[in-house]
Amino acid sequence: MAANSTGRRLVLTSFGESHGKSIGAVLDGCPAGLELDEKDIQWMLDQRRPGQSSISTQRKERDTVEIISGVFRGNTTGAPITMMIQNSDQKSGDYDAIKTKLRPGHSDYTAAEKYSGYNDYRGGGRFSGRLTATHVMGGAIARKLLKVALDIRTNSYTTQIGRTRMKKEFNEKMAGMIYKNDARCPDAGTAKIMKADITSARKGGDSLGGIVESVTCNVPVGLGEPIFGSLESDLSSAMFSIPSVKGVEFGSGFEGSEKYGSENNDLYVVKRNKIVTSTNNSGGILGGISNGMPIVMRVAFKPASSIAKEQETIDYNTRKKTILRVRGRHDPCVVPRAPPVVDSLVSLILADHALVSGKIGPVL
Amino acid sequence: MAANSTGRRLVLTSFGESHGKSIGAVLDGCPAGLELDEKDIQWMLDQRRPGQSSISTQRKERDTVEIISGVFRGNTTGAPITMMIQNSDQKSGDYDAIKTKLRPGHSDYTAAEKYSGYNDYRGGGRFSGRLTATHVMGGAIARKLLKVALDIRTNSYTTQIGRTRMKKEFNEKMAGMIYKNDARCPDAGTAKIMKADITSARKGGDSLGGIVESVTCNVPVGLGEPIFGSLESDLSSAMFSIPSVKGVEFGSGFEGSEKYGSENNDLYVVKRNKIVTSTNNSGGILGGISNGMPIVMRVAFKPASSIAKEQETIDYNTRKKTILRVRGRHDPCVVPRAPPVVDSLVSLILADHALVSGKIGPVL
Amino acid sequence: MAANSTGRRLVLTSFGESHGKSIGAVLDGCPAGLELDEKDIQWMLDQRRPGQSSISTQRKERDTVEIISGVFRGNTTGAPITMMIQNSDQKSGDYDAIKTKLRPGHSDYTAAEKYSGYNDYRGGGRFSGRLTATHVMGGAIARKLLKVALDIRTNSYTTQIGRTRMKKEFNEKMAGMIYKNDARCPDAGTAKIMKADITSARKGGDSLGGIVESVTCNVPVGLGEPIFGSLESDLSSAMFSIPSVKGVEFGSGFEGSEKYGSENNDLYVVKRNKIVTSTNNSGGILGGISNGMPIVMRVAFKPASSIAKEQETIDYNTRKKTILRVRGRHDPCVVPRAPPVVDSLVSLILADHALVSGKIGPVL
Amino acid sequence: MAANSTGRRLVLTSFGESHGKSIGAVLDGCPAGLELDEKDIQWMLDQRRPGQSSISTQRKERDTVEIISGVFRGNTTGAPITMMIQNSDQKSGDYDAIKTKLRPGHSDYTAAEKYSGYNDYRGGGRFSGRLTATHVMGGAIARKLLKVALDIRTNSYTTQIGRTRMKKEFNEKMAGMIYKNDARCPDAGTAKIMKADITSARKGGDSLGGIVESVTCNVPVGLGEPIFGSLESDLSSAMFSIPSVKGVEFGSGFEGSEKYGSENNDLYVVKRNKIVTSTNNSGGILGGISNGMPIVMRVAFKPASSIAKEQETIDYNTRKKTILRVRGRHDPCVVPRAPPVVDSLVSLILADHALVSGKIGPVL
Repeated sequence: MAANSTGRRLVLTSFGESHGKSIGAVLDGCPAGLELDEKDIQWMLDQRRPGQSSISTQRKERDTVEIISGVFRGNTTGAPITMMIQNSDQKSGDYDAIKTKLRPGHSDYTAAEKYSGYNDYRGGGRFSGRLTATHVMGGAIARKLLKVALDIRTNSYTTQIGRTRMKKEFNEKMAGMIYKNDARCPDAGTAKIMKADITSARKGGDSLGGIVESVTCNVPVGLGEPIFGSLESDLSSAMFSIPSVKGVEFGSGFEGSEKYGSENNDLYVVKRNKIVTSTNNSGGILGGISNGMPIVMRVAFKPASSIAKEQETIDYNTRKKTILRVRGRHDPCVVPRAPPVVDSLVSLILADHALVSGKIGPVL
Repeated sequence: MAANSTGRRLVLTSFGESHGKSIGAVLDGCPAGLELDEKDIQWMLDQRRPGQSSISTQRKERDTVEIISGVFRGNTTGAPITMMIQNSDQKSGDYDAIKTKLRPGHSDYTAAEKYSGYNDYRGGGRFSGRLTATHVMGGAIARKLLKVALDIRTNSYTTQIGRTRMKKEFNEKMAGMIYKNDARCPDAGTAKIMKADITSARKGGDSLGGIVESVTCNVPVGLGEPIFGSLESDLSSAMFSIPSVKGVEFGSGFEGSEKYGSENNDLYVVKRNKIVTSTNNSGGILGGISNGMPIVMRVAFKPASSIAKEQETIDYNTRKKTILRVRGRHDPCVVPRAPPVVDSLVSLILADHALVSGKIGPVL
Repeated sequence: MAANSTGRRLVLTSFGESHGKSIGAVLDGCPAGLELDEKDIQWMLDQRRPGQSSISTQRKERDTVEIISGVFRGNTTGAPITMMIQNSDQKSGDYDAIKTKLRPGHSDYTAAEKYSGYNDYRGGGRFSGRLTATHVMGGAIARKLLKVALDIRTNSYTTQIGRTRMKKEFNEKMAGMIYKNDARCPDAGTAKIMKADITSARKGGDSLGGIVESVTCNVPVGLGEPIFGSLESDLSSAMFSIPSVKGVEFGSGFEGSEKYGSENNDLYVVKRNKIVTSTNNSGGILGGISNGMPIVMRVAFKPASSIAKEQETIDYNTRKKTILRVRGRHDPCVVPRAPPVVDSLVSLILADHALVSGKIGPVL
Repeated sequence: MAANSTGRRLVLTSFGESHGKSIGAVLDGCPAGLELDEKDIQWMLDQRRPGQSSISTQRKERDTVEIISGVFRGNTTGAPITMMIQNSDQKSGDYDAIKTKLRPGHSDYTAAEKYSGYNDYRGGGRFSGRLTATHVMGGAIARKLLKVALDIRTNSYTTQIGRTRMKKEFNEKMAGMIYKNDARCPDAGTAKIMKADITSARKGGDSLGGIVESVTCNVPVGLGEPIFGSLESDLSSAMFSIPSVKGVEFGSGFEGSEKYGSENNDLYVVKRNKIVTSTNNSGGILGGISNGMPIVMRVAFKPASSIAKEQETIDYNTRKKTILRVRGRHDPCVVPRAPPVVDSLVSLILADHALVSGKIGPVL
């Protein structure tokens, strides 16, 4: 398995660079017989697209996806599905000016060292957050597959920006609220504060981080493989493929570490003839396997590394101190653009496990 | 890749069940020419072994490892290294009594559903924490390989039990203190409180969770592959293969989400002719690739699921309410036994990436 | 995927060396609920075992298999199945005498170069034909799985030794004849000549090669994946893991290259309401996918490399000419011991594809 | 690993359908720092392109490759290299006329069954020989990499068409002759007869098969992994991904099965201070590992399945007998177009093993 691919049976391969000709993805292993056209993918790409509000970058990326292969007369064929977006509106000149000034928090230094300077550094190249659009290309298909085949429903949303947290607990009825505001927070009141926080950080030449929470309902019992193929292993691995992610937790997570066993254990009860748990501190996963309760995951994003404030740094060539002034157009906070990416990766991993465990077959 | 294996070039396959004949591991891809005998593995297994103190289970597992293949005249040969431990002191009768009573927090229900009841349920079977001994078998070799080939040094330790946190920041000079106390906390004062907390929880028929922190020094710049093969992806995936782990974070992690970019960015400076960062909020990883700073990871463990207190649950066969009284001998807190397991998995992943990136060759 | 493993969903990992403590295999991905005990494996190992007739090596290897994990109360559990054979009757002294004299046709030179001399050279070490017993361990399970789940039946047999060929075409009714003679040829008359040929070669201090043919009946239509996962790709790859194999062909194979398309095309007809072909030049595989006709494969084995005749060679250390006199007890022809190995690998590959394509589920 | 990908460290993913928008490939794992532009790939695609002579199909496919990603300022970057060819001159109407008439020798029936009719059947869809252009895209890069890094040189050529065989033994000095004639046979005299044979078959409404031989010189000792990762396993697996291939052999292959050990063993000698063998019946591979002698492989192609002659067949829908008249423009013999494909796959596999064994590093 190459590093630009993920999955066991449903394999996504990502390609392209931020300022190259195109970015794209190949999704191999999708069952035949799924109705699919560009619209099924475009709406999720649109959710992720920048330039939509005052709190995201003002770059205008149209990000129009084209399906290149794997779909015939409106249905998937079982062959690899290739999707591409032509790049546009890249201003590479912005990068040549600061080319050798190592940007704090970015991969400039590690990439230059790893590839002896052959890497395409423009806009972060292969390491750009822009590449998460390739996750969405595959994820939109996986999400539709899960919905059609098993009525599995994933929703991700902003639950924290900086120190501003959503207090309400999410339930599926709130799903329709997520994209009603720029913060992607299903609670309108909190969203308003979050937006103000981001605007204020941007004005101060600074940036903010935050947390995205993901809740997936109606997952059948039995997805996930023991030991190294656990749902948590695969989901966390996918999350850390998103630039800026520095933490992942399931259910009660880090907070659960502070509880007693008698508080944290979810007790079994029977409801409508089904075995369920009365609480969900496990986040829907026990022994690495789904237990039928909602899968709940929280993903921590660091504050965006590109800030308008001047920063002291080192020039890679001269190894001397220098001052970095990042120009370009950058997100003061990437979190509001992340929910469709998290949705996508959750969907890819769950669809992969549904195929592995035979809950979805090779033809719909 | 099967679910019981992990790694790209250095592949660990784990086998065995808690109450079966033996547990073991096959490590494939280890370079030829590494001096190796059982002692190199046994000392780490001994760190993990139960029955050593008042705060761990009183089961007496000798856990003596035998190397079955892959070593010839004191050196690795390049062939798969197979290691085994004969099981002993298992009291399966303890489990037959509660066989169909679903134990909260355990995999009883998910495993029974996934395998239609064919799974070996005794002692958790394939899902038992006991299987982490197979991680240690492979990890001890990986750790030695990293030390010999690149002088990479990993240390993991307990940094929190329940609400008791170590305040001091770890540095490598404290490494010798970790195994001087039962809590595996390098700060003796904190360790004492942790031990008291665990003893008190045990007496109350309850259990505690906690956090293990791992610090790896002297990692060369350039380990890790972009996108899906990032160090964070592979490390977190490995961590979630440990039963009870519910959260993983790197560097400033979840806390970093609350900071401004100008606070969280690590500025580059030159020290002794090397480019380093003045802080380490990234935890030594940028763009998924090691930047030469210590790799810092924190792993959250939930409180142990087996508690002496009675719990209400469901009988899997009758679907009726019942009362569960867990007997057997269980850890009131698994955290103090986890550091060698975390060390092992960190070592396996880093050694794998050292091989992938050519920092270690196929023959030492 | 490490080099000592094969398979997509049903993964066999082989370990051990010819003169090490043990040889063994881990089979991961076998569905839960298959009745299994040692006898299901031992009978196939017995078919492969040496020392049974005048035309095979007189080494006495009992080759008694033990199941270490993955089976509980007579059924597979879904966990990895580990199997082992303790080595015995190895006379390593035979090898120390010729240690640095490169044996023509063996891997002595390539292995020594690849592993800088760290490889276990005794009896060929990891490269010994003895390791095919690990293929049989996994293959016996796969064969039973295919029989129980889909009534797929594989038979392999000797069809040529040196220049002596079986003329009769094989049909399944002849399956019972294969193990009635030492040559493993279902035609008793040909078997007699083959045995005489081998005896004569042995007396002349020489060895013979030959061809094993494999016929698998009742394979459902649709096994095999396009392009790199074709049945022919996977089957041939498996065959070339057997030492001494130097050629593989399907259906009319090399001979078919000499025919016209109008002769070699298999025409479709309907028989008992099923679409079949009137001939089977394709060997049951079209576009890499099974077409429901018997899968027919022929595997070419070179003559055994160890011969009693003196051979000129080079001393690896001195790089000077020397004379090699192979002692030890060697097969004058390995072909009669190969049919159970071919059966095993065919079964592993087909069972893997049956799992991939959903014809067999994760629980029987 | 998905079925449309191959390789361990250098992974080729193929996508597209014969009559879809485009066909293409992603090559992941190519070291950074290799000079590369479209010309390095185009010349090999041109060798494969149809419409160049009277003995190949008269379809006009320009097959102009475009590099989409992974190359920056004339060098590879270490990121996935994506390449595409826009399809053109497809006449899908030809296929709709015979849509449900199962074409003998093709994948129509197996693909329709496997994908429940969702597969793109036009021109064979995903199963078309046209997809071998995607092998060439990746293979041209691998071939250049091997030449630049290790001076490894691969040449493949037609050695047999129908019953006409080249008698001369190939040596590297003849390499320049291969593409001097339409048959791709380095012996001009034999090439002339081959061309006449193909012309005659075409005029008779029939087709021919043949054999491609591949010789790779200057391979370092030590490529290939024991057991399931042998060079022969990986090379044969790659060859059987080419439509129409039904046999693969190395060195003396099937013929070697008829020899005595004393004839077939290659004796070691020292030449110019290097250990070599005086003959090369092993085809340069011992124990699955390269021994420094030329790697010699022969690949059997069946006669092309599409023939102008009428054939009786079955209608897939009605299950009734019908008469098939294949129109369209087809190769009467695919063998002369196969050498660049064989070259490509040999190069991909050897480059992959050079990376795995550390003979080529991650940056040139």
